[in-house]
Amino acid sequence: MDAALGLAGRGVGRTAPNPNVGCVLVREGRVVGRGWTQAGGRPHAEAMALAQAGDAARGATAYVTLEPCAHVSPRGPACTDLLIAAGIARIVAAMGDPDPRTDGLGFARARAAGIAVTTGVREAAARAMIAGFLTRRAQGRPFVTLKLATSLDGRIARPDGESRWITGPQARAHAHLARSRHEAILVGRGTLETDAPRLDVRLPGLEDRAPRRILLSRSPEPGWETIASPHAIADLTGIDRLMVEGGARTASAFLATDLVDQLLLYRAPILIGEGHPALHAIGLTALAQAHGRWRLADSRMLGSDRMEVYERN
Amino acid sequence: MDAALGLAGRGVGRTAPNPNVGCVLVREGRVVGRGWTQAGGRPHAEAMALAQAGDAARGATAYVTLEPCAHVSPRGPACTDLLIAAGIARIVAAMGDPDPRTDGLGFARARAAGIAVTTGVREAAARAMIAGFLTRRAQGRPFVTLKLATSLDGRIARPDGESRWITGPQARAHAHLARSRHEAILVGRGTLETDAPRLDVRLPGLEDRAPRRILLSRSPEPGWETIASPHAIADLTGIDRLMVEGGARTASAFLATDLVDQLLLYRAPILIGEGHPALHAIGLTALAQAHGRWRLADSRMLGSDRMEVYERN
Repeated sequence: MDAALGLAGRGVGRTAPNPNVGCVLVREGRVVGRGWTQAGGRPHAEAMALAQAGDAARGATAYVTLEPCAHVSPRGPACTDLLIAAGIARIVAAMGDPDPRTDGLGFARARAAGIAVTTGVREAAARAMIAGFLTRRAQGRPFVTLKLATSLDGRIARPDGESRWITGPQARAHAHLARSRHEAILVGRGTLETDAPRLDVRLPGLEDRAPRRILLSRSPEPGWETIASPHAIADLTGIDRLMVEGGARTASAFLATDLVDQLLLYRAPILIGEGHPALHAIGLTALAQAHGRWRLADSRMLGSDRMEVYERN
Repeated sequence: MDAALGLAGRGVGRTAPNPNVGCVLVREGRVVGRGWTQAGGRPHAEAMALAQAGDAARGATAYVTLEPCAHVSPRGPACTDLLIAAGIARIVAAMGDPDPRTDGLGFARARAAGIAVTTGVREAAARAMIAGFLTRRAQGRPFVTLKLATSLDGRIARPDGESRWITGPQARAHAHLARSRHEAILVGRGTLETDAPRLDVRLPGLEDRAPRRILLSRSPEPGWETIASPHAIADLTGIDRLMVEGGARTASAFLATDLVDQLLLYRAPILIGEGHPALHAIGLTALAQAHGRWRLADSRMLGSDRMEVYERN
């Protein structure tokens, strides 16, 4: 299942409106097929793995990070039917598909066809893997990552606006990788005018992963998709994962409306003192309200900088 | 030597103007004496360990975190002479004593008396252990620890001044322990008037470790020792380790005058947004000047807060 989750990870931020799924087919202890949801959502992971396995799929076990779909779509057949037709003997799944067109139906149809089905294996990791899909489904909006790169004292720039660079090359490369895992990046007008950000992915081999660029602004801007308020992210079709990159006013607007699911923090071992803060008002009226909202989900050193990921409690 | 360093640690922040030293006496694989510099600087570690060992010191090895003193003082005999008289066979030291009254003389006199001497064992740890003594000797001022307790976005209070509490009970207990490892704590007038800090050590068994209280202020204040500028810390006799506890103006004044040797950061997993920053202007005129000054020396989780110690590069 960990191998299947690894394959699912390849599609993070590229498969909306479909979930990014991974599939590994194993027969007699040997991997005979591997698949993951392709960019734009098709082919599905199971279809890709079955195509790779061919006749070797007969009698194999399919490890899937999500229940195989049970609905035929104009874009392709139902994966459950493909697995049955290929003679799969057993399905091990991480979780059921909340999509009402499947939601247990994939498992049921597979069982009716004589396939042994197990589910719930590594479910927490599988849920995290498709957080974009699940957030869109449960809340009707993309999963939102807020990225902040600060000094130890929480500054994002000097008083004159100088902000290049606070973090080092490893942290900046990691931030580019994070971009490639989101369908879109959003900035505010202040960042657009001050930094004229390219918002591309400057990593060898990933240059074509540049996400869509969204501007939070009351007035339209050539070359940008523009939304007038954080709540309007719900209307961004084809975007299940959105990264908010700044600046302070935009970050604060998303926090104040409680639309941030994950904090991606990069922190350099420097002190700036007087300068621009990472955030402005976010709607707190007492310290007690600030506590208990975030829990540390991941951390590592990137050169001399520290990366931390906090998730909404 | 690690055991001797552990004993030396008991005296951190209590032995000025003397260094906090540890001593372990071992004979035939058995510890026969343990000593550490007592509060106020006397007795010395070796004297204490020898008194404990009595006749068992004959033929023993003395592990000492600093070269034994070679000078007789009105407050006690020279430890080198005590070790010779006790019949110590071997001295293993972490480092030489930079005090010009000893500075190699202790080792030389011991060798002349037929004692085998090794030095340089765990020297880096031993130097860190007596950073207060070494800073006083090299720079004529105390070693300065700057403590900051902030939110993830670098705030130390809400706009209305509310700052209790940002960090949790484990981090606050650790900060009290840190207080007990300094001879004095310094705050500015703003903190005095806003928070009326007690600056005591509220830890079971350590209540009597309350450091001296210093106020950075142009005007005197009853019950406080007052200094008018950060540079005046040089005049604070009997203080080799000073902890600067706030507020932002005081912290910034110490950073701007380059008088901070160690940052002790506590960071809570909360966002505050609009509020009081940890620092004001610290004299930077470009980001490049901020880099390379600090390196991470220690870190750990304290409940859901993170403690980090940075040392001057």
